[in-house]
Amino acid sequence: MSQTHPLIPLSVDETNLARDIIRAAYPQNVLKFRVIYLEEPAKEILAPYLDLEHAGKVTSSTPRPAREARVHFDTAHGGKPPQSHEAIIDLSTRKIKHIESIRADAQAAFTSEELDDVRIICQDSTVFKERIAKFNLPQGFEVVVEPWPYGGLDAADDPNRRHMQALIYAADSKNRECNFWGYPLPIIPVIDAETREVIRIHEIATGGGSDPHTFAEGDYAKVNIDHMTPSEYVPELLPGGLRRDLKELNVVQPSGPSFNVEDSNVINWQKWSMRATFNPREGAVLHDVRFDGRSVLYRLSISDMTVPYADPRPPFHRKQAFDFGDGTLGDACNNLQLGCDCLGVIKYFDGVLVDHSGTARTTKNVICLHEQDNGINWKHTNWRTGRAVVTRRRELVVQFIITLANYEYIFNYIFDQAGAITVQARATGIVSSVLIEEGKTAPWGNVVSPGILAQNHQHIFCVRIDPAIDGHKNTLVQTESLPMRIDARTNPNGNAYQVVTTPITASAGLDANPFTDRTFKVQNMDKLNPISGQPVGYKILAPVTRPLLADPNSTQAKRARFAQRHLWVTKHRDNEFYAGGRYTLQSVSEIEGVADAADRNDDVYQQDIVLWSVFGLTHNPRVEDWPVMPVEILDLHIKPADFFTANPAIDVPGRKNFTSQLTNAEKGEEASCCADSKPRLIYRGEDNETVVQPGLDCGQENGRRPTGMTFLFLVWVNGDCGGLNPM
Amino acid sequence: MSQTHPLIPLSVDETNLARDIIRAAYPQNVLKFRVIYLEEPAKEILAPYLDLEHAGKVTSSTPRPAREARVHFDTAHGGKPPQSHEAIIDLSTRKIKHIESIRADAQAAFTSEELDDVRIICQDSTVFKERIAKFNLPQGFEVVVEPWPYGGLDAADDPNRRHMQALIYAADSKNRECNFWGYPLPIIPVIDAETREVIRIHEIATGGGSDPHTFAEGDYAKVNIDHMTPSEYVPELLPGGLRRDLKELNVVQPSGPSFNVEDSNVINWQKWSMRATFNPREGAVLHDVRFDGRSVLYRLSISDMTVPYADPRPPFHRKQAFDFGDGTLGDACNNLQLGCDCLGVIKYFDGVLVDHSGTARTTKNVICLHEQDNGINWKHTNWRTGRAVVTRRRELVVQFIITLANYEYIFNYIFDQAGAITVQARATGIVSSVLIEEGKTAPWGNVVSPGILAQNHQHIFCVRIDPAIDGHKNTLVQTESLPMRIDARTNPNGNAYQVVTTPITASAGLDANPFTDRTFKVQNMDKLNPISGQPVGYKILAPVTRPLLADPNSTQAKRARFAQRHLWVTKHRDNEFYAGGRYTLQSVSEIEGVADAADRNDDVYQQDIVLWSVFGLTHNPRVEDWPVMPVEILDLHIKPADFFTANPAIDVPGRKNFTSQLTNAEKGEEASCCADSKPRLIYRGEDNETVVQPGLDCGQENGRRPTGMTFLFLVWVNGDCGGLNPM
Repeated sequence: MSQTHPLIPLSVDETNLARDIIRAAYPQNVLKFRVIYLEEPAKEILAPYLDLEHAGKVTSSTPRPAREARVHFDTAHGGKPPQSHEAIIDLSTRKIKHIESIRADAQAAFTSEELDDVRIICQDSTVFKERIAKFNLPQGFEVVVEPWPYGGLDAADDPNRRHMQALIYAADSKNRECNFWGYPLPIIPVIDAETREVIRIHEIATGGGSDPHTFAEGDYAKVNIDHMTPSEYVPELLPGGLRRDLKELNVVQPSGPSFNVEDSNVINWQKWSMRATFNPREGAVLHDVRFDGRSVLYRLSISDMTVPYADPRPPFHRKQAFDFGDGTLGDACNNLQLGCDCLGVIKYFDGVLVDHSGTARTTKNVICLHEQDNGINWKHTNWRTGRAVVTRRRELVVQFIITLANYEYIFNYIFDQAGAITVQARATGIVSSVLIEEGKTAPWGNVVSPGILAQNHQHIFCVRIDPAIDGHKNTLVQTESLPMRIDARTNPNGNAYQVVTTPITASAGLDANPFTDRTFKVQNMDKLNPISGQPVGYKILAPVTRPLLADPNSTQAKRARFAQRHLWVTKHRDNEFYAGGRYTLQSVSEIEGVADAADRNDDVYQQDIVLWSVFGLTHNPRVEDWPVMPVEILDLHIKPADFFTANPAIDVPGRKNFTSQLTNAEKGEEASCCADSKPRLIYRGEDNETVVQPGLDCGQENGRRPTGMTFLFLVWVNGDCGGLNPM
Repeated sequence: MSQTHPLIPLSVDETNLARDIIRAAYPQNVLKFRVIYLEEPAKEILAPYLDLEHAGKVTSSTPRPAREARVHFDTAHGGKPPQSHEAIIDLSTRKIKHIESIRADAQAAFTSEELDDVRIICQDSTVFKERIAKFNLPQGFEVVVEPWPYGGLDAADDPNRRHMQALIYAADSKNRECNFWGYPLPIIPVIDAETREVIRIHEIATGGGSDPHTFAEGDYAKVNIDHMTPSEYVPELLPGGLRRDLKELNVVQPSGPSFNVEDSNVINWQKWSMRATFNPREGAVLHDVRFDGRSVLYRLSISDMTVPYADPRPPFHRKQAFDFGDGTLGDACNNLQLGCDCLGVIKYFDGVLVDHSGTARTTKNVICLHEQDNGINWKHTNWRTGRAVVTRRRELVVQFIITLANYEYIFNYIFDQAGAITVQARATGIVSSVLIEEGKTAPWGNVVSPGILAQNHQHIFCVRIDPAIDGHKNTLVQTESLPMRIDARTNPNGNAYQVVTTPITASAGLDANPFTDRTFKVQNMDKLNPISGQPVGYKILAPVTRPLLADPNSTQAKRARFAQRHLWVTKHRDNEFYAGGRYTLQSVSEIEGVADAADRNDDVYQQDIVLWSVFGLTHNPRVEDWPVMPVEILDLHIKPADFFTANPAIDVPGRKNFTSQLTNAEKGEEASCCADSKPRLIYRGEDNETVVQPGLDCGQENGRRPTGMTFLFLVWVNGDCGGLNPM
């Protein structure tokens, strides 16, 4: 029996073992492996195991949940199309525990090698080469094929074909670091990934709002890239070079970080503990999130996202990416670099990926872990004494970053000392570009550079929150603050409002409403806060943003039902992870997505529930988003609401930071950072009695240590950390 | 003629001069001075002067706008009530330029000395002392009088009296650092600040939701503080002491900050420039905000805020603070301390305040200026080469912090390198507490500690934005992204949405609407972006929060009309600064507030307009907010929207940070931070030709420098700042 913890991702060896078991079972016809990753144990097995573990009751003889692998692979069937399968392998028994072929209406997510194939298929295609030759590209330009998922199938498409499409760009062939997104060409080839043929090439309209359906076909001379200008971002290609007046800012942690990592993926920090895993469908996932030993979340992940484009001119309706579900998320995860993607003392976690042969490799630094300072956390000044106590907001960040063709997303799980979690999405990278003729503009996008139309689009994210608020039986409640009329008995002066709390008892999709201050909480109705008498809980505070705008009858909308509500609550089922459906590639509707789960109309009152928080960005591009856009930041907050019996950060030290400095201009005027302060040394005796004595500047003792007492710490009085004017 | 810049606050000498001019004019009867501060020049004078200055055309002979002071003071009139006045003094001619007595229905904002007086009046009052004696306070407890503004006058009140009220607390008399907010007593004395008498003492209900109107009167024995427990936050009083596992995190800037300060209050940073001033009504104010010399804002300030409480039991309807308008904001501004309120290299700005005698004093460090790192700003990885370029988001922060009795607000004006401004409000401090009998709960608040009811309330802020988008003639436009039905001609596949832009042509209050992605922009219709053809502009993106909940017919609502809409647009008038009105103390309606200004129905299309952004927090307290609440953070973003011709941060260097470190556990496994990187040295010749050569680890040259070229910088290729997996 393996002693590896059930929440440690598969090793390279385990991954290769899973491959070998499949190969042995299908010796003749394994065509390709797609992904192999840890099959997490069923909750009914894992949850009690984790509780036992936290109770200190796991011994070497305690049975551990089996190590299992999930394997997506394809088999060949002679002249017939290949078949995709998902298998679950028990690695200890070396048996296939479960296998299913994927449903006929679904396509498996694509791999990196399949993306490469799209490039090869186009470049080898005579029809594609002939079409390219008709472009009158300037000397020294080459063609770049940018593979894209096909989007939702059109009615005329053969659902049995595996479609991919590609956006086509020109690029300065002398410099492979040039920004080819700055030279879009107005064709979109569609290929069959199995037969490796170019099915057709769409000629894209290149006109503006006044002539929306202008096509270049038959008049190729009018389409050129002469009216475009370079859109560079790498430093040596910037015409003006880099600015030179930004001074170094270093984060230095002389005593190391406040976190530690045990058993390869247990993170302990400031009373928080959790396990971090990596898989090729979700990136970084957090499990068994506890504060001071109390269970808060069972699992936290980025479940899905969709990016629909709003240009009505066909075939742009098929520009709709599901960046997590369509494929290659594991390969898209950046290998983070020290000194680049975060500051301070950093711990990196690696992942394991496979290629088509199923051979595992380590992908370095796909998750990073560090601390950051985020300003003041709490402060109060006592006007009776002028003494201020101020503590800073230290945060722990678990970060991963994905690059999907033109775009990047940065995901941060952020923990603070006051018991809150923030899931932060940052959108950056290069906005998707299409050609527009010189001098034209269009209502479905913005001209961000001459000849470059950046189309309007949305980015809609779904964060999956599997709560475990002091146990697994939890309830979602909706709280609203509602106005009340003046009433002689209940509201004589009209200042009252009422707070109305409604438990959600059936699985459903729900809407936000800032006008009633609608707040969603997850509570454990069986456990009351001993202070307030209210159920212990956490608030779920997502940005209130516009849901999917596409017509509900459109394919874009049907395949992204999840994106049409702000919050979903469902009853937990193992392996129900993906809001936008288990298979999104060329889907025409959500396949086993969160809306289907909600449609079960399950009882969700004090049940094992899952919450799915949906928020996004309606991105009508600005010129400032070009050539690489500054981050747009979206924060989902998961905050304690009567979970604790006081501010859990009240014991955070408010120590003065001695490396902070005045500017040189001021240093002449003022003395050292201790000059204004009046240090007091605090001693504590055995009976917890404390004694305060004045100290010298910078805290040295200034008298006799009280007999029988130990030095506890020093504080600065009055001058400490801010203060009112003398009263 | 003075050579002091018109946007430098009054010096101590100028302030004292203003006082002397008033004293000379009213030799017999100046009773007290309230505030003295810079009267900013009229916009029609100052705006052209600033333009001249930025054009480099101000010489020593250019006339500067006059230095003027605004003086609030009271005069005595024998047996009649004193009168409050506002005067404008020309400091060069030493003349009173303008004087007006404040309107009969208004009260001047209170001073710190008046707050002290409230304490003295209560403590000297026989009726108050007799009432206090009836409390059966435990041994060693003393009484603390916490002055409060009276709130809106009740119908029965005499509008000619100057009312104040006080909340009353008990406190451990042995320790003046104890948290007295943890022992509220159920009486509220009301005093007349002029006659110095206690008008009455309210007995406050102490029951819960089931017996809301229980009063202790006549049954004093049932009201005690025995069921309360200490609510301490100063470190030496915490029963468990401080946590010991938080390691030091230092921000070190070895080359100093990237900003500089000229002419005492001009801040230059990363293409931004602005003037920072301090005054006793608004705290830190920014003026003449420009980016790369282009005008963005004329003036940016926190205009007002109101904090109405929602407990329906009288007299709690009069718990409604206007923390900026009611009084003492200048004194409430914290004297910030190095190493406490921010990290890194810090520049502090002092202010000038006066006491009742009009004598000026310097109040130290009321504004601080520093830089901070806020994660990644933009990143892109080129899949063709694996090279990632990533830049960090450096921010400049102008911070001030106010303490108002129990509560603190932290205000940060944050500038980034991509041309955006964030106005951030952080709420912390101690929630206002009232006594509740043991074991009871109430629907209008939460029990956050035994015996402590924290009442539901709102914090509603108003930020005043005086825009100057490439000049002073600007227009507010509303942009909405609206769904479209499937339509064969315009939206054949249902993926399109329409972006509808509507200029606002008449002054008004407006509402947000996240469901239509309603976005407000301020644009200059006379200046089109040369790339997009759209008017240059900035977006105003405030948190969409619940406006004032109080019944519109209530006094709370009538005196806070500003708090009932999300955004106001008005036509500029000099000295129209305060959304909640010029005088808020005991007001029953907004006196010359933003709603009055909007009611003028002015033409605001390409006019000199002012925007007033309103957002807030409906604060139904959590147990976690006690005893000092972790910050709640609200961000108002002011972001360029086709103001620039590209991302203005594209030239920010993406240099590797060499002080970042691996954790000790990892250092053994991996070599130095340069090990993975492949440095390339970039050279540039006179004709701007660039050459890239491989370098040694850490960037030393690894070959011959190309003839005639100079070293430009080094980059890390592939391993630089993150990268895709090898393709």
